Amino acid sequence: MQVYMDNNATTMVDPQVVEAMLPYFSEKYGNPNSIHKFGTGSHPAIAKAIDQMYAGINAADNDDIIFTSCATESNNWVLQSTWVDQILNGDKNHIVTTEVEHPSVLSTCKFLEDQGVKVTYLPVNDQGIVEAHTVKSFITDKTALVSVMWASNETGMIFPIKEIGEICKEKGVLFHSDAVQAVGKIPVDVQDVHIDFISMSAHKFHGPKGVGALYIKDSQKLSPLMHGGEQMNGRRSGTLNVPFIVGMGEAMELATKNIESKMASMRAKRDRLEDALLELSDTFTIGERDNRTPNTLLISIRGVEGEGMLWDLNNGLIGASTGSACASEDLEANSVMLAIGADHELAHTGIRLSLSRFTTDEEVGYVIDHFKAAVLRLRGISSSYAKVQPTPGGEATECAI
Amino acid sequence: MQVYMDNNATTMVDPQVVEAMLPYFSEKYGNPNSIHKFGTGSHPAIAKAIDQMYAGINAADNDDIIFTSCATESNNWVLQSTWVDQILNGDKNHIVTTEVEHPSVLSTCKFLEDQGVKVTYLPVNDQGIVEAHTVKSFITDKTALVSVMWASNETGMIFPIKEIGEICKEKGVLFHSDAVQAVGKIPVDVQDVHIDFISMSAHKFHGPKGVGALYIKDSQKLSPLMHGGEQMNGRRSGTLNVPFIVGMGEAMELATKNIESKMASMRAKRDRLEDALLELSDTFTIGERDNRTPNTLLISIRGVEGEGMLWDLNNGLIGASTGSACASEDLEANSVMLAIGADHELAHTGIRLSLSRFTTDEEVGYVIDHFKAAVLRLRGISSSYAKVQPTPGGEATECAI
Repeated sequence: MQVYMDNNATTMVDPQVVEAMLPYFSEKYGNPNSIHKFGTGSHPAIAKAIDQMYAGINAADNDDIIFTSCATESNNWVLQSTWVDQILNGDKNHIVTTEVEHPSVLSTCKFLEDQGVKVTYLPVNDQGIVEAHTVKSFITDKTALVSVMWASNETGMIFPIKEIGEICKEKGVLFHSDAVQAVGKIPVDVQDVHIDFISMSAHKFHGPKGVGALYIKDSQKLSPLMHGGEQMNGRRSGTLNVPFIVGMGEAMELATKNIESKMASMRAKRDRLEDALLELSDTFTIGERDNRTPNTLLISIRGVEGEGMLWDLNNGLIGASTGSACASEDLEANSVMLAIGADHELAHTGIRLSLSRFTTDEEVGYVIDHFKAAVLRLRGISSSYAKVQPTPGGEATECAI
Repeated sequence: MQVYMDNNATTMVDPQVVEAMLPYFSEKYGNPNSIHKFGTGSHPAIAKAIDQMYAGINAADNDDIIFTSCATESNNWVLQSTWVDQILNGDKNHIVTTEVEHPSVLSTCKFLEDQGVKVTYLPVNDQGIVEAHTVKSFITDKTALVSVMWASNETGMIFPIKEIGEICKEKGVLFHSDAVQAVGKIPVDVQDVHIDFISMSAHKFHGPKGVGALYIKDSQKLSPLMHGGEQMNGRRSGTLNVPFIVGMGEAMELATKNIESKMASMRAKRDRLEDALLELSDTFTIGERDNRTPNTLLISIRGVEGEGMLWDLNNGLIGASTGSACASEDLEANSVMLAIGADHELAHTGIRLSLSRFTTDEEVGYVIDHFKAAVLRLRGISSSYAKVQPTPGGEATECAI
């Protein structure tokens, strides 16, 4: 048996999605910008995909949803074009974001700081989220944009997007959210919150890697990041990647249709897994369970170095993570745990398990057994764990830092 | 029968390429940045694709080839990062390009002009190409970059890249070429010319739409366009699109292996087609045949409006074009013909036929018959053609503007 529990890093493409994409490689392969039938032949499929995207996040007719090559592009687009439009060619000079954003937001902000932009990185509370009043206190009359993730890739914790949206509306500041870990996992309704831009990624909800999207409220102005051939109303140039656009639409529909029942099923499996792992002493998970995406848990196992644990899990053919895949080659401490205030040693003990709608009860049982055995084995050979005095009471807790 | 003759707009994905990509959607789907076996399982395939790319353009070991989402991204990357690195944060202020570049170069240059960059758009000669001495005469000590296409998407004409490269080397100016219409059609050897950057696109040589690449000589500095998670040595962030990277590598190998024999076969079919169409009176093709990519011809048929001709060809299930697919929805005059000096009426008569290695002799015969019949029919109902005085001699010519 092999079990993939790293669905926040990427997901298996749903075979139904592959089936929907296949005709657009070698059969209906025309360039949709061509006016002959080879080009126009894919127009109905593209229109369907756009409809599926609008339905998936309840976008309004006058909003734009523009396909990009990934959420990294969507995030770069919003941040860099805000710089060009409102700072280089405007009277603003400030962007507000958080300490725990995805590297595609944080690195772009560092780049913008090099260009003279002032960036505020908001701290998180002991739940790993930014509170709305914190956002409010850092907005100035020079703030061009607030960018706060919808849900954390590391912990699954859901941020107070509705409250932050109200503050941004009141202050007249543009609001962007990297919603990569929210779309397809929890309901995302862009008409229920005040939000100007959200970034999405197909491969986080069983679509292909290499296609993302940016939602733009009221089709408002935002200079392109990719200039060129006037595709997508001139907002994002480059020949349309028809199969992946079709695939993203299909994946969106499959993920968001009856999302409540999918969430309940994932939540039940995740909770069973979490309850079982918390039976181990000196373990805790980050963030209140009810405020997390239903597929995610980040567990800290005192005395067990995360990389060693990953290795052991991998030997058991279980795919897990110590945090963001975008940084995991670096063997760094978990950045969210550091931001919450964990010491470096503890921040190296985090293991993220992220389920999907394809995860089975049998797989959960297999992971519980293997995970527990691995912890016992690794603690048995740990030179540091023996020295640790168990906390009074010693029982496992949820969010105990 | 249906015949696709618009391969400069996009190509059919080679079924062998689809086969190579398929396992990476729903079987080997891990994120290559993850350190478990689901992630590392795709590493050998990615390494193979990179090798295929290096072999395809004869890149040296210390060069970089970075996968992007398309050549539009590659072109935007070089131009925008040159602006950031050498103009915003340097002492240059000038870019040299040509009047006939792809919209992804021209629109990005217009954007940079809005940011205060000086851009020179070089004129073309009567063959539709820019001569090396023209480039030389416009380079100043403030020039940061020269960007000249390797071959024209509209005419197939090949530009004097080797000579321009020598000039740029002598002047100490960075040299970029949009080589989208050259790679896979003619030999492109980056060690035979002095060139810093070339843009490539898989879907122009029977790979998928939605993946491109940028060649960077000596892995030299160029700020990223996409900041983020340190993929590809931090040069282009975003989760690797494994299937399309595998597909681009495979397509590159299939296109460039024994390229001379593929060129000879395409050239024979293209020449047969061109000779037959030039039997029609008052027609000419743009650019000397021997200096074109072997798959392309752009023919002007006096008295026949290009859009009407496309419609007629489309009714015969033939896919052709009046020029760049990136502008063809606009029903504009052919931009290269205008740049050469054709009047507006004539520039509306251009029809581009672009073959591929999958084009058959039977398809060529079908197009010849249908094309000739369409010209006779459309001229018969043309109100303007009757008024045109045939040129003395009246015979068909090659490149007669």
